[in-house]
Amino acid sequence: MSNSIKLAILGLGTVGTGVINLINDNLNELKRRSGRDIIITEVGTRRQRDDIDPNIIQNSDLMATAASDNVDIVIEVIGGTTLAKDVIMHAIKNGKHVVTANKALLAEHGNEIFAFAEQHQVHVAYEAAVAGGIPIIKVMREALAANKVEWLAGIINGTGNFIMTEMRDKGRPFADVLSEAQELGYAEADPTFDVEGIDAAHKLALLASIAFGIPLQFDKVYCEGITGITLQDVNYAEELGYRIKHLGFAVRRDGQGNADNAGIELRVHPTLIPQDALLANVNGVKNAVLVNSHPLGQTLYCGDGAGAGATASAVMADVMDLVRVLGSKDNDDQSSGDQNSSDQNNTNQNNKGHHVPHLAFIPEQLSDTPILRAEQMTTGYYLRVHAYDSPGVLADITRILSDAGINIDAILQKPAHKAGEVPVIILTLPVVESQMNLAIEKIEKLDTITDKVVRIRLDELA
Amino acid sequence: MSNSIKLAILGLGTVGTGVINLINDNLNELKRRSGRDIIITEVGTRRQRDDIDPNIIQNSDLMATAASDNVDIVIEVIGGTTLAKDVIMHAIKNGKHVVTANKALLAEHGNEIFAFAEQHQVHVAYEAAVAGGIPIIKVMREALAANKVEWLAGIINGTGNFIMTEMRDKGRPFADVLSEAQELGYAEADPTFDVEGIDAAHKLALLASIAFGIPLQFDKVYCEGITGITLQDVNYAEELGYRIKHLGFAVRRDGQGNADNAGIELRVHPTLIPQDALLANVNGVKNAVLVNSHPLGQTLYCGDGAGAGATASAVMADVMDLVRVLGSKDNDDQSSGDQNSSDQNNTNQNNKGHHVPHLAFIPEQLSDTPILRAEQMTTGYYLRVHAYDSPGVLADITRILSDAGINIDAILQKPAHKAGEVPVIILTLPVVESQMNLAIEKIEKLDTITDKVVRIRLDELA
Repeated sequence: MSNSIKLAILGLGTVGTGVINLINDNLNELKRRSGRDIIITEVGTRRQRDDIDPNIIQNSDLMATAASDNVDIVIEVIGGTTLAKDVIMHAIKNGKHVVTANKALLAEHGNEIFAFAEQHQVHVAYEAAVAGGIPIIKVMREALAANKVEWLAGIINGTGNFIMTEMRDKGRPFADVLSEAQELGYAEADPTFDVEGIDAAHKLALLASIAFGIPLQFDKVYCEGITGITLQDVNYAEELGYRIKHLGFAVRRDGQGNADNAGIELRVHPTLIPQDALLANVNGVKNAVLVNSHPLGQTLYCGDGAGAGATASAVMADVMDLVRVLGSKDNDDQSSGDQNSSDQNNTNQNNKGHHVPHLAFIPEQLSDTPILRAEQMTTGYYLRVHAYDSPGVLADITRILSDAGINIDAILQKPAHKAGEVPVIILTLPVVESQMNLAIEKIEKLDTITDKVVRIRLDELA
Repeated sequence: MSNSIKLAILGLGTVGTGVINLINDNLNELKRRSGRDIIITEVGTRRQRDDIDPNIIQNSDLMATAASDNVDIVIEVIGGTTLAKDVIMHAIKNGKHVVTANKALLAEHGNEIFAFAEQHQVHVAYEAAVAGGIPIIKVMREALAANKVEWLAGIINGTGNFIMTEMRDKGRPFADVLSEAQELGYAEADPTFDVEGIDAAHKLALLASIAFGIPLQFDKVYCEGITGITLQDVNYAEELGYRIKHLGFAVRRDGQGNADNAGIELRVHPTLIPQDALLANVNGVKNAVLVNSHPLGQTLYCGDGAGAGATASAVMADVMDLVRVLGSKDNDDQSSGDQNSSDQNNTNQNNKGHHVPHLAFIPEQLSDTPILRAEQMTTGYYLRVHAYDSPGVLADITRILSDAGINIDAILQKPAHKAGEVPVIILTLPVVESQMNLAIEKIEKLDTITDKVVRIRLDELA
């Protein structure tokens, strides 16, 4: 079996089991495509399972499996950022290539992990970490490799998209839909990571690095969840031709003459986008990423962002890439045993030559382009202002916006829904947040204003 | 400059010029990603151009450029199937990697060209040949490499999609929109390749091969154009919740118990698809491919299918892949000069190990799964039947369908638009075409039927 590729799976939850099932189902396709036998030799699992092929070693010592001589590629699907990190670092140190679906780990410790992998001349592949089965990592790292990415916008959390879809389609309030999502298994018992946008921020940090060639900077992602979105705003948005989606944005800004505002925006927030945009019609738990790059223009990638099948598909796509890196059977042995960073090791040298850099750009070419602070970011806005229905209130509001250099794109004044109180909806063209903050402060000081101004960002995706 | 990658561009039309512009615009991105200088050393052009960098050799002898010692990768963007084939075969023979956007050439002669490339241990990359800037070739060959593709459906001709979009959006007849498409440069003076589906059939042949691991079989693609689509049918389809798109389908069929009908359907035709499908909302000249694979499920890829920027993006993505195949500067010389198929040539051997097979599956694993004939294909149908408004006509039609085992999904009977003549619209569930042919023959023999039955295929994309 010297021609076979030996996999270890660490963690036998939904994804690990999905990988086993994929290999069983598609054994013939895998062999027809790769020319190799791809076999699972070992699994790392705390509990012995009796539904696993008896030829597969079950090892409760995950560190031992990560370093096993019987393994070429280690698949980490444990999750979390502690044990998962330990086993990955141990695998790297022992010359194993690693495949992981762990977005939190990479977003938070990826710079260190990738540097360690470079040092040991192995690859850490992570297609499954972002947008599940959508091959957005490969697309960004390889297919768009000749482009300059201008911006990307993505529905990269299925739970959040399910909630926003149900709210709009069925007029159900947030809390109600969240409960259902939890019952369906889309959302965790503690839904914070999903509804507060942290999961999306992890993924956005990864996407932004490979888009712009910057180090991973999860801590600088501006992050706003969907817990504050009401049906009222969902409906007003629809009335004005927009749809509210929870999106992650990574945008390159030249500062438009103001060097202080030149840099990269990394932000996750609810966003009004045009109803007829394809992205606005990606519904339920689906994910999608829209990339605008030069000279290609806009391309969209859509599919299942989670689930055993989709994630296993991404994990095994990485394995199929690594099969080529592992080369033909004649040098099958190079990846087993201790790593060898010596220049005399010709096979490793070739691996290096063929390597797509972990963050798409070669490490010494990663740039220190600043990540902009929230107040430096430029977006359009949806504003909902509540005012007493007195003459001149609209004039006051529009004057404040105009004085702040904020251009109004649309206004919707609804009939009073409480005695004498009028909701006014205003859509603005893009404006730097600090200016909008000042304008809203002034609006809220008007005597005629009855409540805090509600604001949601808006993007035409143009 | 031993570290540089030397490109030749054969043909300086829209695409060739687009490649030059991309390299100028994104020089820094290309270097940051690849770590190499990517330079155009030579262009093959019949007419000398004075707007080209004087460091680039302009050669009117394209065969000489294809074999030049000064070139690592030959980019063929001449088009056509005669000279283009000659220069590609010559480049291969001289050990050059080739990048081409030539769908017609590959669909018709790809089996021969790829075999020749395997023999000479070089790669022929063709991302730009299908769906322009959408990286569908990389996605199918690499990102979905662990999946079993069940079917794919694609809008793979922008001109056709522009025409269908305008007919629906603006209620304009086919001929009128075609004229505009020609004025806008979307359609050729002779629009046959676009509107008769031949261009789409070329691309479908390529997609089907890498989806299923079968040799290229362009001659077996069933091909129906959009010239017969009327506004009447566009509007009836909308009324029933469908939209007519010109699609290419590649579908794996198990024959459902009838081994004679097991095989692969390759077909290009107008198709009713549900209005709310994302594919139905891909408008204008955009392309999109929807792939259904196991275990991933449906993924959609959308973007510009033509134009200088999109095509150059795809061409240069192939170049960036080949840069890795060409390896580090230490073995930079391997691809220059005559090919060397000797096993002693270690670098070539490694190239071979790292090679994604041209048709995604290793050549000896391509299968001879039969391509089904039109009458063996299974699709739903939209039928427009014109009948005298006499009692019992609907009963006669539905009885014929029912006797043929054809299930009706919806019926729309419109008020008579000519004196006494009633259009009846019938949507059916999927049925083998031969059965539908027999049923339509019987319907057309009814005394009450006033005209040929109009039929358009229908797919739920489920």
